[in-house]
Amino acid sequence: MRSLIRGSGFTLRPHAKAHKSSGLTAWQLQASTAAGEPTTNFCAQTVGEVAALLKGGCSNVLLTNSLPDFAATRLGELAASHPTATVSALVDCPEHVAALEKGAQAAGVRLGAFVEIECGQKRCGCPAASDTAVRLAKAIVASEVLEWGGLHVYHGAIQHVRSAEERQKEVEAGPAAAARSTVARLEAEGIATPCVTGGGTGTLLQDLAAGTHNECQPGSYLFMDADYAGNEDSAEKGFVQSLYVHTTVVSADVAAGRRVVDAGAKSCDFVCGPPKPTSLTDPALAETLRGVTFKSGGDEHGVLHDVPEGVLPIGSTIALVPSHCDPTVNLHDYLVGVRDGQVETLWEIDARGPG
Amino acid sequence: MRSLIRGSGFTLRPHAKAHKSSGLTAWQLQASTAAGEPTTNFCAQTVGEVAALLKGGCSNVLLTNSLPDFAATRLGELAASHPTATVSALVDCPEHVAALEKGAQAAGVRLGAFVEIECGQKRCGCPAASDTAVRLAKAIVASEVLEWGGLHVYHGAIQHVRSAEERQKEVEAGPAAAARSTVARLEAEGIATPCVTGGGTGTLLQDLAAGTHNECQPGSYLFMDADYAGNEDSAEKGFVQSLYVHTTVVSADVAAGRRVVDAGAKSCDFVCGPPKPTSLTDPALAETLRGVTFKSGGDEHGVLHDVPEGVLPIGSTIALVPSHCDPTVNLHDYLVGVRDGQVETLWEIDARGPG
Repeated sequence: MRSLIRGSGFTLRPHAKAHKSSGLTAWQLQASTAAGEPTTNFCAQTVGEVAALLKGGCSNVLLTNSLPDFAATRLGELAASHPTATVSALVDCPEHVAALEKGAQAAGVRLGAFVEIECGQKRCGCPAASDTAVRLAKAIVASEVLEWGGLHVYHGAIQHVRSAEERQKEVEAGPAAAARSTVARLEAEGIATPCVTGGGTGTLLQDLAAGTHNECQPGSYLFMDADYAGNEDSAEKGFVQSLYVHTTVVSADVAAGRRVVDAGAKSCDFVCGPPKPTSLTDPALAETLRGVTFKSGGDEHGVLHDVPEGVLPIGSTIALVPSHCDPTVNLHDYLVGVRDGQVETLWEIDARGPG
Repeated sequence: MRSLIRGSGFTLRPHAKAHKSSGLTAWQLQASTAAGEPTTNFCAQTVGEVAALLKGGCSNVLLTNSLPDFAATRLGELAASHPTATVSALVDCPEHVAALEKGAQAAGVRLGAFVEIECGQKRCGCPAASDTAVRLAKAIVASEVLEWGGLHVYHGAIQHVRSAEERQKEVEAGPAAAARSTVARLEAEGIATPCVTGGGTGTLLQDLAAGTHNECQPGSYLFMDADYAGNEDSAEKGFVQSLYVHTTVVSADVAAGRRVVDAGAKSCDFVCGPPKPTSLTDPALAETLRGVTFKSGGDEHGVLHDVPEGVLPIGSTIALVPSHCDPTVNLHDYLVGVRDGQVETLWEIDARGPG
């Protein structure tokens, strides 16, 4: 990821929503520092993830979400307990500004605030170049407890557009256009935008090409998944699959070509489709498994169809490539770090859960 | 549930896969004892759930799954640490019998073993009335460390057949027929079947009508969900929705009729469809929400469409009825017990996770 971004003028702000782990955060800090290109800025999607990032040693955390009052209070408390760190969140309406100010004041800290711009996903954010965006930016600049961070312009859905050409068009029409027009409007109002942040693993090359942002927020590149591997320019970026769910064959109907494994919807997220079965230790089995279909067998089982006779007896294990890494990691308590077939570390998924 | 089963000759063996909580287990024990009809038998789907049930005070736990070696070893260890409890699991092949025997021997305990019969779902289980079923039953009867429990005959998919008449037919053609023929075959081989266990919340009335089992395994009735509420005879059984995910409005585009709440796919399982929004405190709002569509906004957001102006400002809260209770509970760490609007207890979901 560092080599792809190097020289682009972009800053890497990795997202923690994919891993939710303070231990993996500490590893990212160490690895980037050891490489001579320290990553200092991270982002989170929940207050729990902010806590994990601060515990992992981050000095600059952006919560890429807007917060109700009670969550802004928790954010202020977290910032107060890590006084050397910069902690920021998003706003898209005056209520968010008030909540962040209240949270900052109650904890006796300053909090950063970015204005979120809606750019096509029709989720959160105020309209690009709108009066609301201007009013919010002015309110942040005028606030005694908030720090004006800039704009957050992100479109999650277009990360998964298969064609790179089509994805480039979507980036231009969505986040790039929204960023460009809003920066210009703010400039006309006398407000400089210190940072435009957004983007993910899927649109990375397209965001770099558009050049409207100066910070990118990829997270999934650490793990990859079957969905991202389906993007046309995935191989070009050079990220490899590192996340697997290991599972054991617990039942077999050999005559019917069926094997049942002990991993279902409580082990692998199925919203983006079933995981892909493979083997990390047996290349011939991995090849065989390319012809095998995995179907959900419910919450605790997966069913492999079209399995040839003579492979996968009861008790044998295979690896599953999740279709979507984020919600799959969220089902588990630990990431097991394996190098050359040996367990090297355990990372607790300590920010697991919705909050 | 007790009143539905009373007098039927069935024993209630509630399933813990829906709640995964030792605290809720203890409450079930207390509530049933206080009612003068103590529930003593429970079932689990994972070894972690067995541990939670034993911690909650159960004296008879059936793991309704067959196990690889390492899990059978853990089951034996759990049984050894709860010497007055009966702990059982399923087998559908000789490898499972060997694994359970090994687990029992290593821990110096006896384990119960039930033969699982395939009855239409094409997942685990050996064929009904088959030579394999006979061989497995004989192996269990002959074992010095296993206790012959009987048959486990369960079809998960037919729990959700909407029409009660159709569901009755599926029960007859599937689990009832499989139980009947296997019990007869075993009897012909000189083996009495002490128990036939299976069934769930969906097929409860149909299982009682079929009369081939003498134990039922419902779990979801404690919580209910939007999926089970869609079964034709759901109201007849009298179970009420008790499980809700509370969520807060974090963004609004009032002109577009849109509200964004802070609950997405990491808060509610979406495999059976989106949750249904409602209000537990405001009947007029609950009525309004019947006309509102909830769509996933990704892992951390939900989007309400067609929301009238003047309702659901930023910061207001609503309740979501999950489409499927089991995997939704599995996303959270605590169940919050509320009575008459007051928090009365917290139950940790201590067996949360795939293992």
